[in-house]
Amino acid sequence: MKNIGVVGLGLIGGSLCKAIKAYTDCDIFGYDIDEAIVYSATEYGAIDARLTKQNLSKCDLIIFALYPANTIAYVKDYLNYFQQGCILMDMCGVKEVVCNSIQEIIKGYEFTFIGGHPMAGREFSGFAVSDKDLFQHASMILTPFQDTKKSVLNTVSQFLLTLGFERVIDTTPQFHDKMIAYTSQLPHVIANSYVKSPNCSYQLGFTGGSFEDMSRVAKLNEQMWTELFLENRENLIQEITILIENLCNIKNALEQSDADKLRSLLAEGRVIKESLK
Amino acid sequence: MKNIGVVGLGLIGGSLCKAIKAYTDCDIFGYDIDEAIVYSATEYGAIDARLTKQNLSKCDLIIFALYPANTIAYVKDYLNYFQQGCILMDMCGVKEVVCNSIQEIIKGYEFTFIGGHPMAGREFSGFAVSDKDLFQHASMILTPFQDTKKSVLNTVSQFLLTLGFERVIDTTPQFHDKMIAYTSQLPHVIANSYVKSPNCSYQLGFTGGSFEDMSRVAKLNEQMWTELFLENRENLIQEITILIENLCNIKNALEQSDADKLRSLLAEGRVIKESLK
Repeated sequence: MKNIGVVGLGLIGGSLCKAIKAYTDCDIFGYDIDEAIVYSATEYGAIDARLTKQNLSKCDLIIFALYPANTIAYVKDYLNYFQQGCILMDMCGVKEVVCNSIQEIIKGYEFTFIGGHPMAGREFSGFAVSDKDLFQHASMILTPFQDTKKSVLNTVSQFLLTLGFERVIDTTPQFHDKMIAYTSQLPHVIANSYVKSPNCSYQLGFTGGSFEDMSRVAKLNEQMWTELFLENRENLIQEITILIENLCNIKNALEQSDADKLRSLLAEGRVIKESLK
Repeated sequence: MKNIGVVGLGLIGGSLCKAIKAYTDCDIFGYDIDEAIVYSATEYGAIDARLTKQNLSKCDLIIFALYPANTIAYVKDYLNYFQQGCILMDMCGVKEVVCNSIQEIIKGYEFTFIGGHPMAGREFSGFAVSDKDLFQHASMILTPFQDTKKSVLNTVSQFLLTLGFERVIDTTPQFHDKMIAYTSQLPHVIANSYVKSPNCSYQLGFTGGSFEDMSRVAKLNEQMWTELFLENRENLIQEITILIENLCNIKNALEQSDADKLRSLLAEGRVIKESLK
């Protein structure tokens, strides 16, 4: 891996550039729809130069840190500028829609596409908050196609571990989307719903760690999450339904003042939590 | 304040003893139903001696770090051992039931009772995890009676600030219970329900900060929380109902694939979160 292109210099793209600069010897070319960000990233030293049609064709690896629809559109638009044999990888929070679309688009071309999703993020967005160490101790999920060569997958995995990821998980787009509906999307739905209680405005002084944790990701980018939620709507609807059922079980025990039932419901959750690695 | 009694040496009681030892010159007498804990606390230097009927009557301040029903029972049982003019303070997570019961019990006696609830805790319990700095930067909520003397309230507040609390809030038991149903009890209900999705057992490698935050307090002491929830059931039922409504709004927008509605619901939560101090 010598030349790397990064398309989209927000929190994820910016952090990738900074990590690549800090932990590898690769040259990086970066692009963002906002020219001022490209300028900042160059000034900061996070990228070596602007990603152009010329240097795009020299890249061995091109990473898309864009929203799903923009990722698909970019691959379609720049199909004839990618170097033969290069590796394309996206960073989207949903994988089935992205991987299926791109598999169709690149059919017949000599590129390898690997779906990717870094399990890292913050409740802030943009290049300004990007960080070379955002990926330290995080998992990276890859969703290669069935015919992706093992050697290419190994190269990409090794490269990702160099950037600070603790582990690289290899799974299908379907399983990824099902899991992510639960581990990432549902917490955003919950936090965003949680802060809508009328009592929220009086919280000052009445909160401890559990309020902070519960409400943290209520501060989300609604444009991005609307797209991600809709592209994974069936899995997410299912998770919300399961959660509501479990909330109703506790609510029913409270309505019936049934201490034994309540205690056993709470113990059930505790045991599950304690069993997690 | 010279002699302080602490009844119950778990996470809160133990941390209070350690903080009092670290940040004041008071003598502390401690009691726990588990004699081994009294022994540990003495060995550790968290208390000066076991709290006995004899030294109980020398205490200027007696703090109860027990479950609600045990707090009420203790006050009733030891009524004749408290020194005239002393201050009694509990640390229970619900205030109306505790304050109303104790107000009845001490009628005619020359004690001051002040309800208290430290906004600090951890997902672990017991003396072993207690910490002199548990209260640093935390709020302390007090629910004095209407006839509590301002001078006594000031003394207690100053004492609490010495232990590391960032602020002392003075409110009614009713308002406390309403707020705590939302800021503390509801997050425990949510976390405990959240981990019950069948997908939870496959989470390893698919999680980032939002899963961790959402599930942290699922590990709760079901004995204690069952009591706290039932003693505040109406407020808690109301909060669970409001949350389910807000979850259903998002679920409906997803079912209708209504991007505008979804975006506006998510923006609403974001704006609330951003407005919080």
